[in-house]
Amino acid sequence: MGKTPIRLGILGCGVVGDALVALISDQQEVIASRTGIEIIIEAIAVNDLEKNRGEWIDRSILTDKPEDIVSSSKVDVVVELIGGTSPSKKLVETAIKNGKPVVTANKELLSKEGPSLFNLADTNGVDLLFEAAVAGGVPLMRVLRESLIGEPLDRVIGIVNGTTNFILSQMAETGATYEDALMEAQRLGFAESDPTADVSGQDAASKAAIIAMVAFGAQISLNDVPYQGISEINSADIAFAKKSNRTVKLLAVAEQSNGSIEVNVYPAMLPNEHPLSSVRDSYNAVFVEGQAIDSLMLYGRGAGGKPTASAVLGDVIGASNNLVGGTCRGVGELRPIELKEMDEQQSAYYISVQVIDEPGVLANVASVFGENNISIRSMEQEGMGGEARLVFITHAANERNLRQTLSQLGQLSCVEKVGTTIRVIET
Amino acid sequence: MGKTPIRLGILGCGVVGDALVALISDQQEVIASRTGIEIIIEAIAVNDLEKNRGEWIDRSILTDKPEDIVSSSKVDVVVELIGGTSPSKKLVETAIKNGKPVVTANKELLSKEGPSLFNLADTNGVDLLFEAAVAGGVPLMRVLRESLIGEPLDRVIGIVNGTTNFILSQMAETGATYEDALMEAQRLGFAESDPTADVSGQDAASKAAIIAMVAFGAQISLNDVPYQGISEINSADIAFAKKSNRTVKLLAVAEQSNGSIEVNVYPAMLPNEHPLSSVRDSYNAVFVEGQAIDSLMLYGRGAGGKPTASAVLGDVIGASNNLVGGTCRGVGELRPIELKEMDEQQSAYYISVQVIDEPGVLANVASVFGENNISIRSMEQEGMGGEARLVFITHAANERNLRQTLSQLGQLSCVEKVGTTIRVIET
Repeated sequence: MGKTPIRLGILGCGVVGDALVALISDQQEVIASRTGIEIIIEAIAVNDLEKNRGEWIDRSILTDKPEDIVSSSKVDVVVELIGGTSPSKKLVETAIKNGKPVVTANKELLSKEGPSLFNLADTNGVDLLFEAAVAGGVPLMRVLRESLIGEPLDRVIGIVNGTTNFILSQMAETGATYEDALMEAQRLGFAESDPTADVSGQDAASKAAIIAMVAFGAQISLNDVPYQGISEINSADIAFAKKSNRTVKLLAVAEQSNGSIEVNVYPAMLPNEHPLSSVRDSYNAVFVEGQAIDSLMLYGRGAGGKPTASAVLGDVIGASNNLVGGTCRGVGELRPIELKEMDEQQSAYYISVQVIDEPGVLANVASVFGENNISIRSMEQEGMGGEARLVFITHAANERNLRQTLSQLGQLSCVEKVGTTIRVIET
Repeated sequence: MGKTPIRLGILGCGVVGDALVALISDQQEVIASRTGIEIIIEAIAVNDLEKNRGEWIDRSILTDKPEDIVSSSKVDVVVELIGGTSPSKKLVETAIKNGKPVVTANKELLSKEGPSLFNLADTNGVDLLFEAAVAGGVPLMRVLRESLIGEPLDRVIGIVNGTTNFILSQMAETGATYEDALMEAQRLGFAESDPTADVSGQDAASKAAIIAMVAFGAQISLNDVPYQGISEINSADIAFAKKSNRTVKLLAVAEQSNGSIEVNVYPAMLPNEHPLSSVRDSYNAVFVEGQAIDSLMLYGRGAGGKPTASAVLGDVIGASNNLVGGTCRGVGELRPIELKEMDEQQSAYYISVQVIDEPGVLANVASVFGENNISIRSMEQEGMGGEARLVFITHAANERNLRQTLSQLGQLSCVEKVGTTIRVIET
């Protein structure tokens, strides 16, 4: 089989870039013998030309001018690993306009600019691939874009943030407080010194937006995705979940029903039998529900240099194959969607309320639920000296009614504090 | 976007074919709007033209001459759902020679004739896709063939037979005997009235062969895959596994090390923490280990009309896209491989031995292990009246030594019966 050389230009060379170059050096021959494509690293754009790098990196191909790479006639495929939107957006656009397929791991860029970039790629007849942008080494994008492109999908539920999954797993398994678990995550390098983007749910929201684009062909952006994080979750919440055979997970959920779409990020209690419940540590997993496929789960490493590089490499080979074949595979036209108003969303909820322990309190609290049309499925009281903690699981309730309930509960004189609200998913 | 019509010829219309036609009828417009391809069912070959069929099937396109479909100039893509090797092999070959991409769910055909059929497809420049042949709706083939084509894979471990997974899950969860669990599987339609192909491990062996072809580019056939089934596994084995925090699963394992490949099917005890342990009921799952990707698991429905049809549809759209783009994506050249001799394989084992309960027995039995160079990691004695059951977990042992040990144990006068041998996987 004759070998076709494909010359890569890599923008950015941090942990993932370094792992990618090492992986390609190692696998070049195997890839050539299996696909007929010889991947050649032509140029790498870096910030600091003087920095020490892995031995597999040939210093003579380093440049500090990424804009040269995206315009170079010597580069066939561009890999964007800079992150963020500036200068990434402009670089990706220029590469596409110059007819170069682009592989990117940039969730921020796609969650904000996905629809226009996919459109640009289609117009120019080149691939824009982004497996590594969502759940790292988990091949969700390819499965959604190709295997399930004809499937009537109902819902995609993902654990797509490894930091928060690590923290929640630690809390459940060791009884650690949120603060201790976060510190442990930072110590092990699973959380950044400023963990806000992860623990607030924003990182997961970026991924949820991209999932909704691909799964439902939805024209959507990060701004359309409401997100709630995990920093309010405390040991008592986790203990309650455990006792009731549930597990708390931070979920990115995109679902479609009756023509409208909901995309959200929130912590939720899942029954322990749900396959996502056993996803521990910093692993990622995505559960897909469709009318024909029934249910499908993909599980793996959501981050880390090597797994992410593996995902990038799969896309590089895919883009190279398409380039050689003179074809490309777009996401398809994204259509404007009707997003279900947050107010109209329905869910069962876990609600904890700290109250003064005296007669009549439960009746007072329960009446607030009743007045707001929220039906209580179970209630439990946990005494704590002069105080008590009431824990409610509601039946499916409307979000607007829920917020009204929480606000009215806060005004009751017998209520010391309204605690965390966590969605409850039954199946 | 202009729509390109792709005319399908479907060979065979049982449960999967029926579900496929229904799915296409339902999704035709969505697929067209997302991919630009309008899938038209041109002809369906059936055995019995008179049989009643789903309302979505237009009787005027039925024929009982599949050989006409694979030669018809009105058919662009062929879907083979007949199963078996005759007449499927000839039909698939003819379709390919006529330049028609083929999508098949036929594990038997591919496990026996895969290498020559893949070669024929490559020579004729058409796709031969087979997602549905292994683990039904689980998109393993696409992930291995595309996402992980550049990944240095070490091992693929699959639960790829739903019948046996259902039986083993029932035994573990309800304490049922093998016979009762099998009857329950038959009652629910998970097992056939003659369950041999499933419980013997042969069905899983077909899938293991296909996995090894795709994961390692191995030229291999079903005959190269030794298989052991589950019919010897009894309640005591399952109870021991449970007590020691392990789960018994029937595994299809393909692994590569030092240039040689092992492909086997056997029941194994996995630690409960292993993601495959929580795969219950008739679900399938495949765990992939690679040097960059670390570990990856795909989980879903391994059988059933709708999930299988969903997998076939993904392939139909893929083949159609490639046809329109004038390209195809082969498996790549399969190379002759060195199969590790069964005798040389290493594994830890669970071995149970029924003995007469009298002094000195353990020493006798243990000395047989020692003489054959098998080191014992743990031993437990379970009394049963005048008899006793000795349960051993060995350290990694050579298969030849193991077989010698088992045969010598059988000859000891204190040994009533040598029970099931089950591999033990630690990580």
